Order: sequence, then structure tokens, then C-alpha cells
Amino acid sequence: MTREPALAVLGAKPRLSDTLPVGQFYWPDWQRYEDAARGIFSRRYYTAQRFAGPLVVEFQHRLEQFLGVKHAIVVRNATNGLMIVAHTLGLRGKVIVPSWSHVATAQSLLWSRCQPVFCDIEPGSQQASIDSVRRLLEGGSIEGILGVHLWGNALPVVELERLANEYRVPLFCDAAHAFGCRVGERAVGTFGRAEVFSFHESNILSTAEGGCITTNDDELGAKFRAMRGDHVPGGGVSMQSATARMSEIQAAIGMAMLDDFERHRRNNEQQHLLYAKLLHGVPGNAVMTPSGATIANFQSSVGIVERAKFGLARDELLAVLRAENIAATAAFDPPCHRVNPFSVHAPRHGEFENTELAAASTIQLPIGSRVTADHIEQICDIIRQAQLHSDTLRTMPAHTAAS
Amino acid sequence: MTREPALAVLGAKPRLSDTLPVGQFYWPDWQRYEDAARGIFSRRYYTAQRFAGPLVVEFQHRLEQFLGVKHAIVVRNATNGLMIVAHTLGLRGKVIVPSWSHVATAQSLLWSRCQPVFCDIEPGSQQASIDSVRRLLEGGSIEGILGVHLWGNALPVVELERLANEYRVPLFCDAAHAFGCRVGERAVGTFGRAEVFSFHESNILSTAEGGCITTNDDELGAKFRAMRGDHVPGGGVSMQSATARMSEIQAAIGMAMLDDFERHRRNNEQQHLLYAKLLHGVPGNAVMTPSGATIANFQSSVGIVERAKFGLARDELLAVLRAENIAATAAFDPPCHRVNPFSVHAPRHGEFENTELAAASTIQLPIGSRVTADHIEQICDIIRQAQLHSDTLRTMPAHTAAS
Repeated sequence: MTREPALAVLGAKPRLSDTLPVGQFYWPDWQRYEDAARGIFSRRYYTAQRFAGPLVVEFQHRLEQFLGVKHAIVVRNATNGLMIVAHTLGLRGKVIVPSWSHVATAQSLLWSRCQPVFCDIEPGSQQASIDSVRRLLEGGSIEGILGVHLWGNALPVVELERLANEYRVPLFCDAAHAFGCRVGERAVGTFGRAEVFSFHESNILSTAEGGCITTNDDELGAKFRAMRGDHVPGGGVSMQSATARMSEIQAAIGMAMLDDFERHRRNNEQQHLLYAKLLHGVPGNAVMTPSGATIANFQSSVGIVERAKFGLARDELLAVLRAENIAATAAFDPPCHRVNPFSVHAPRHGEFENTELAAASTIQLPIGSRVTADHIEQICDIIRQAQLHSDTLRTMPAHTAAS
Repeated sequence: MTREPALAVLGAKPRLSDTLPVGQFYWPDWQRYEDAARGIFSRRYYTAQRFAGPLVVEFQHRLEQFLGVKHAIVVRNATNGLMIVAHTLGLRGKVIVPSWSHVATAQSLLWSRCQPVFCDIEPGSQQASIDSVRRLLEGGSIEGILGVHLWGNALPVVELERLANEYRVPLFCDAAHAFGCRVGERAVGTFGRAEVFSFHESNILSTAEGGCITTNDDELGAKFRAMRGDHVPGGGVSMQSATARMSEIQAAIGMAMLDDFERHRRNNEQQHLLYAKLLHGVPGNAVMTPSGATIANFQSSVGIVERAKFGLARDELLAVLRAENIAATAAFDPPCHRVNPFSVHAPRHGEFENTELAAASTIQLPIGSRVTADHIEQICDIIRQAQLHSDTLRTMPAHTAAS
């Protein structure tokens, strides 16, 4: 252990010549893309005018079948979808949302003239804490709950539905991370009043940019379509539109991705299992195991770095990995309640104990289409080396420069 | 004139077997699309993660050169662009905007927590009335002005800039219709604090869905990029983002369309001249001649139907054309001030005299890539027939059914 470790941060050649980013990056093969694009060219129907195009309609139908939900309304992206849902539900005041989520979740509420009220998370799963939500509901004047399914897993959504019903406030969910996940027999996409998926390429089902609103409520479904900018027969332009259309080529990509979903999910799962196996026994570094969902999509490989046991802080490990061209990330650090403009309404100390712990210790590692077994072996070896030589690495000033 | 006219509305076979819609629908040829898409596949960079992709960066640079503007920031669509601009300018109260525009113009202000205050238009050009804007400014408590360049033409933007400066309120413009137009030597895109183009396929430069914000202000440019969702070096996620990224394939399409812009503009101009020639002398039916811009893009073919002289109301003529599978439209009828939710703040009678006149008489005819000289000859012949036989047609109940 006195031998100098072969780490780029100590001057060795980086393990990877090109940067390996976090994100799923699955994509159809060229031939399928070409076939779809040629069809679109022959029809000369590239994007919606007054009505959704034929591929958008087909994609929605396939999503409805896959998810077992009555209405799938594809939109420009998840932020747009969440804006449409909050507005359509008539929410204009305080809406509970976890601070531990992508900042766009809370930002969608601002665009909808709502005020985010942040809840804390559970320490293990990092999903919304039911107790924390209950305490905020007890405080009164809450108009709605925006749940978030994190990390290719599911929040305790049955419990949250029960709580929302108890307090008679609508629940809707940001399901950006959770396409294809199930809770019991029910697919994510069927909970609350509506759920919203993201089809950004960082997620398992991608249309480059894009997203989808799902609901089992016919009336809401019609309103969501009108809000997207579809022509309302007889009604003209009578509703506030969000101009949220998806193009035909995006729908074509989405259908190819849906065909490949199970293969991609299994590939993710194999990678997850390899991470877990290779990092087993490393002190202070644990790979988060999916819990809460009966089927997880494993689109995120999330580790927890316990500084006291690992010997390095999370940001120090990030610096070690980045020197090797592994673009691991600090997830949602800083969490929403510390981000401008939300931080203006400074929370009382201690309300976000688990969120703060997650923010300081979480690391997101590459998983998905660009990742090979060799990559994972390299990454896990680097993490092991970093732990073994943490005393040496800790004294190097450069390691605090992760950003 | 007693001979039965050969019109579908009277039982004749429709002139066109397929519907001819209003909209530009220009598009790159397959080979250019394939070359661009293969390049994107080889780079595996489909859309922005933390940073805009290489084609998005190149497209923006080319737009900046074409328009002679310092910053072009491509976004998801024009609605998103307008939301970003209004929010970034700090507008949260009353903003003047013409009632005679696509409803999305005013809707963007609602999403930005502003309150649209509608102005009237000039009777000939249908552009914002400077006098009407001045009267609203004199009324006080106005925070900004959202100008609209209509019909491939330009609003009196120099005068409006002067007025905005006089009252010290920011001016920004919806330039959805006006890509490539010029006022004197200056391109639309260089006026006010910022302008916003739409790249929907109904416009001369299309990326299927899409849009672009332009500004000569460095500070605003940086803020717009952050608001789009770009990574802010050192700043992380500190600003309210609108998640408004454009994908690489959209940027590739946009660049091909920019190459072809002048050819498309000239094609539009030829079609406009043919409409004007063939409709010359038809009583009560005039094709609007571009005015205000030194270079117009002729992306809209707009006619005015004077019922008293033409013999049919605008909606009756629409019904005649639609029976022939010509999907002419009533433009922005009903105008914004009569559309929910804006109509809740009912205006005093008479404030919108010219807007109401435009709403009752304007007809938008097909122009652009799908339109041939033969189409225009057929359309003009139908309009001539409709005028000649207006007495017969007026008595038929079906003609009032245009919707």
C-alpha cells in the first residue's frame, strides 16, 4: 500500500482517452432511423399544425398500451409537461415537492405561478419522506403535491396517494427517471391525477428532447391536449396553450426506443449488478439498491460516499474520477432549497437533514449505452485505489476542485 | 352569369383532391438531411446535456452572421423564447401587446406572470398602432411592450423603439413571421431589447418545432443561455431555467433552410405577385401588399374580403374555398381580446375597431413550398367565381358553416 497508485490525479495517464458521461444515451440504429425519416419525408408531415401527426398519434397509442394508462400525451419536454399539469389542475399556491430533485422539477412550478414548498427525503431510498410531507400538509394552505420518482425507482406512491386523498389535495408526479418502472402490478404513469415522463437522452427512453403526460382521467386528458396546442374542435383557441408539440421524428425515435426498452433495461441491470459486485466490501462506498419498485429500470447508478469510512469526501472522489475522464456527478447538489430563487425562502435548519446528507454524499456513475464492462471494472478499480490511498490523496489541494 | 358556376359548394367535384394547407412547409432535400443525420449519429451527440451541441453552436453563429446580431440563442419554440425574454427583463406586470396576433404571443406573457394589455392595429398594414400604444402608455403602470411583426412584414419598429425609450419601458418583439425581413438596413432581430423568431414549419425558416432569441446585449445574451438550461460555468443551476434546448437535428435542418432562404423568399414573392395579378380588379377582394419592411419574406398571402363589395362575407368565402379542399383560414379570428382567458378583462367597446375589422375580413391563402402556379390560378378563379355568383351562394345555408 505504499506503492504509488496509478491514478491520473497523481500524474498517471488517464484511464479513458474520451470523457465517459453520466446518462443513458440509448438510440435507435441508423437503418431504423432512416426508414422512419424517409416515411416522414414522403408524407411531408414533419410536425403538428392543427393536429398531432400520424407517428405522434401512434407513439401515444403504444405508450398507453405499454403503461396500461388511458391517455398518453407526448409533449416537448418534462418541464413543459409539469407546467401543463399544474396549470390544468388549477394550482396557483403552495405545492409540496422534494428538494432532492432536478431543479427543473421545482422550476416548472414557478412557471405555473405556484410556490414550491420543499419536503425532505428518506435516508436510504432518497425518495420523498411521507412523514415530511404529512408535517407540511398539517401546516395547512397546501394546494397540491408534486411527487418525484427518483433513480429509475419509485417513490412510496401508494402511501402518498393515500395521504393526498386524506388531505384532499391533488397528487401528480415527476416520473422523469422512472419510465417502465412498476409498483406492484401498476406501472408508474398510472398514479395520482397525472404523471410526467422525460424523454431526454439522459433517460432510458429518449426522443432527444421530449416528454409525456399520462392520466386515466378523460377530462384531464382532453385539457392536456388542448394545452399542448392541439386544435380543440369547435373550441378554437379557448384555452391557455403551452405550445408543447412533439415532432414526427421524435415520435419515430420514441417508438424504436420502446421496442428496445426491455433490452436496455436488462443491460442497465447487468451493469448495476457488476458495479455492486466490484464495489462490494469497499469501506464507505455503497451502490444504492433499488427499492420501492417491483420493476426498476436501473437508469441511474448511484453511490453513497461516507467520508469517515472511505477516507475521502464525495467531491474528492469526484475529482479523482474526473481526472480519469469519468464524468461522474454530484447529482442534485446543491439541492433545490439552496438554489436561487428558491433559497430566498430560506428553510429552518434541520428540516432537510436527509436531503443535506444526500447532497454531500451522493455520486452518480456512468451507466447505459456508452458503458462497457471494462469501463465499470476501471471505474471500480479507481474507486478502490482512491479508498486505499485516501491518506495520500486527501493532502493534494487539486482534489477539492471538482465542479 | 346565369350559368351555374363549377363550385364544389354547389355540388361540383372539388378542384383539389388533397387538402392544400396554409403554411410554408419548406424542408431540406433528403440527401442533405441524411448527411447531417449520419454526422450526428457518428458523433452520438443528439441534444444538449450540459452544453449546446456542435450543430446548435454552428447554427447560432450562422444566424448571428445572417442577421447581423451579436447573440442568437436557439430555443424550443417561440413561446418559450418570449417567456424567457419577458422573465429575464424582469417584467411581472402589464405588458402592451397587439390583440391581432397568434394567441400564443399573449399566452407567453401569462406563463411569465405578466398581464397582457391589448393595443389596436393600423387598418392597412394590420401592424401595431403607434397611437394606440401611446394611449395605453399614457394610462400608466405599463412595464413593457411586446411588438409583433406580422405577415412576413415589419411593424413600425423604429417608431415603437422611440416610444419605448420615451416612456422608459423595454420593447421586445415577436418576430415569428419575419425571419429575413429588413427595415432600412437593419434586419428584424436587431430591434428592441430582444426579438424572438419561430421556426415552426408554418414559417419560412423551419426546424419543425423551434425558435430563436436574438439580442445585441451581452448580459441579456448570457442570461438567455442560462434560462435555456445551459450549464453556467461556476454558477451551476442558479437561475430559473425554462428547459428550452434545441436538438442537433433541428439545428442541421435550420442550417439547410438558411442556405435556401433567398430561394424560398423569391418563390414566395413570385406567388404573391401572381395572386395580386390574378385577383386584380375583383370587387371587394384585395391582396395585402407588404409595407413597412424594405425586404419582406412574403411568407403569408393575406387577403381582405369586403362583404359589401364582394357580395359574400369572409366566412362565406372560406366555406367556398374549403369545399374545394383549399384550407384557407380566418387568421387570428377571434382576436386575443375576445379569447378566454383574456376576454375576462373585457375591453371597452371601440378600443379595437381596426382589430375587429381585420378579424371579420382577413383571409389567409396558401403560399409556399406546396403551392404551384396552377394552385394559385385555381384559387383565384374560385374567388372570382364566388364573387360573380355571390347572390346565388349567399342563399345557401351551408356557406355559413366555416369553422
